[in-house]
Amino acid sequence: MNDKSTAPVTVIGLGLMGQALAGAFLKAGHPTTVWNRTAAKADRLVAEGARLAPTAREALRASPLTIICVTDYEVVRELLSEGDGELTGTTVINLTSGTSAQARQAAQWAGRRGARYLDGAIMAVPPAIGTSEAVILHSGPRADFEAHEGTLGVLGTLAYLGEDLGLASLYDAAGLVMMWSVLNAWLQGTAMVRTAGVDAATFAPFAQQLATEVAGWLPGYAGQVDKGSFPAEVSALETDVRAMAHLVEESEAVGVNAEWPRLIKAIADRAIAAGHGKEQYPVLIEEFGTSQAGD
Amino acid sequence: MNDKSTAPVTVIGLGLMGQALAGAFLKAGHPTTVWNRTAAKADRLVAEGARLAPTAREALRASPLTIICVTDYEVVRELLSEGDGELTGTTVINLTSGTSAQARQAAQWAGRRGARYLDGAIMAVPPAIGTSEAVILHSGPRADFEAHEGTLGVLGTLAYLGEDLGLASLYDAAGLVMMWSVLNAWLQGTAMVRTAGVDAATFAPFAQQLATEVAGWLPGYAGQVDKGSFPAEVSALETDVRAMAHLVEESEAVGVNAEWPRLIKAIADRAIAAGHGKEQYPVLIEEFGTSQAGD
Ligand SMILES: NC(=O)c1ccc[n+]([C@@H]2O[C@H](COP(=O)([O-])OP(=O)(O)OC[C@H]3O[C@@H](n4cnc5c(N)ncnc54)[C@H](OP(=O)(O)O)[C@@H]3O)[C@@H](O)[C@H]2O)c1
Ligand SMILES: NC(=O)c1ccc[n+]([C@@H]2O[C@H](COP(=O)([O-])OP(=O)(O)OC[C@H]3O[C@@H](n4cnc5c(N)ncnc54)[C@H](OP(=O)(O)O)[C@@H]3O)[C@@H](O)[C@H]2O)c1
Repeated sequence: MNDKSTAPVTVIGLGLMGQALAGAFLKAGHPTTVWNRTAAKADRLVAEGARLAPTAREALRASPLTIICVTDYEVVRELLSEGDGELTGTTVINLTSGTSAQARQAAQWAGRRGARYLDGAIMAVPPAIGTSEAVILHSGPRADFEAHEGTLGVLGTLAYLGEDLGLASLYDAAGLVMMWSVLNAWLQGTAMVRTAGVDAATFAPFAQQLATEVAGWLPGYAGQVDKGSFPAEVSALETDVRAMAHLVEESEAVGVNAEWPRLIKAIADRAIAAGHGKEQYPVLIEEFGTSQAGD
Repeated sequence: MNDKSTAPVTVIGLGLMGQALAGAFLKAGHPTTVWNRTAAKADRLVAEGARLAPTAREALRASPLTIICVTDYEVVRELLSEGDGELTGTTVINLTSGTSAQARQAAQWAGRRGARYLDGAIMAVPPAIGTSEAVILHSGPRADFEAHEGTLGVLGTLAYLGEDLGLASLYDAAGLVMMWSVLNAWLQGTAMVRTAGVDAATFAPFAQQLATEVAGWLPGYAGQVDKGSFPAEVSALETDVRAMAHLVEESEAVGVNAEWPRLIKAIADRAIAAGHGKEQYPVLIEEFGTSQAGD
């Protein structure tokens, strides 16, 4: 095999993200083969030294490592599901966003063609690719990850999560729910204080500080979840729910959207109805871990 | 007036929080008068040097500054609403949790009796009182806050938010929504990764890091809200919504509760329906700032 720093690599899918990925490999000196349905999107990369493969199949056979990054798994299926055994010895790393079930399915398509398969998820925007700010999650066989770690490292900060192929998608989803939850909480708070004439810039540092502080509690609270024991060390759920009622009331009274506060309260109310009022907040793992009517 | 370090103070309400407040004043050497409906709760404080007033009215007249910390504003009303002019020259600081409207109402009751009034909110648990970790929010006339800042400082870290009496309650609610949102996002993520055998302790640092990182975006995003202009600098809402769909699908597929992801998506879907798909996430301030059908 080539020296890691110049191992050949293929990138399939040259949308916003695929172009950034291929660009990072080229910049680091990797011989880079590309393919895209709309060939014109390869023009800039070809000018920078990329080789354009005439078909996806040829692109997959051109390098020991192929990165796929397309819209969704429906496209991945089109790219991977036809063929038999001819990719033996190559590794596919699929960075297309999807669910854990889709990742496991794609591994089967790749396996039928003899390819090794890792699933990944990109927690970054295209301009961050090639910097340490771009976090890229991987899951699947550890040996396959380690074999290509040096090449992949030019894309950003790598995280290897474990052998279960679904982990990259699960962590990606878990990261996104945190992102949108912090943003929604900030928007809810901003909407509330704006009713008293406070601007968003004045409120933001307060929201930032609180989010950071509460984030610091998570490792400790995780201990309660893993033990399955939730003693009310600092506050009991029934006390929290009284404050949630104020939050709903306040949101309604000042005329902002109360859906987000109401869902916070509804989930906690169910845990109290199930007899957990004297326990601490992480006992809600039982509510979050169980699908609800309507799910 | 007395030297700040020994200014007399009254505490009304000796529940878990009131006892912590009175204890901190006593420890700092303030002559402290207390009153509680159930007198026995004063025993320990009296042993530490507190003076027990026979009635709430006498407690209110015993010191230039009275802190009230009881269950809710219904109790505050019972304590403050009867009487006329006899509290001239005294200041009441109400640290009972409630809404901004209740705070403004309580200021009127206090005003009728001649008292000056500040509203406050305690963002801490009782054991933190007396340490810098206890953040106590205040709103109301700045001069009244400044007159008692030295005395109040023994309770924790003080924040003065502005003249509008409702601000302490609004910031308190906004802080709570951030707290529960970070916790719920972490629980949702924990529930998801547990389906692949990952324990809560393994996942927590990832959730912590993400929450902290996203919190760092808030001051920048606040600029978009204040300008009312939401160019898609890093991502467009319609791209986010595709990932939200994966999140809902993933939650449903692994059998965890999907309510929280579904509300995230429902709010964003409405913004897209209103024509904001090409704008950036903070454009959702329009959804959060407007009460919805059912509110
Ligand atoms: N952009 C981001 O900020 C970001 C961040 C994290 C993760 N991701 C993920 O990265 C993946 C790609 O995103 P992107 O931003 O690069 O999207 P994009 O700009 O819309 O590009 C989509 C790519 O998929 C290809 N494609 C779509 N349908 C196809 C088909 N039927 N057959 C063959 N190719 C097809 C497109 O080819 P054509 O050029 O021929 O249309 C294009 O190369 C997505 O899963 C996305 O969720 C993106
Ligand atoms: N504990 C916390 O972690 C925490 C944190 C932040 C904010 N707070 C807020 O602080 C306030 C007090 O909380 P807490 O934890 O001290 O509650 P608590 O332990 O339940 O104490 C409630 C207090 O209110 C009094 N009270 C209730 N009904 C009354 C009535 N009808 N007339 C006169 N007094 C009455 C109680 O007197 P009796 O002793 O006679 O029942 C007691 O002094 C609440 O608004 C709470 O939201 C608490």
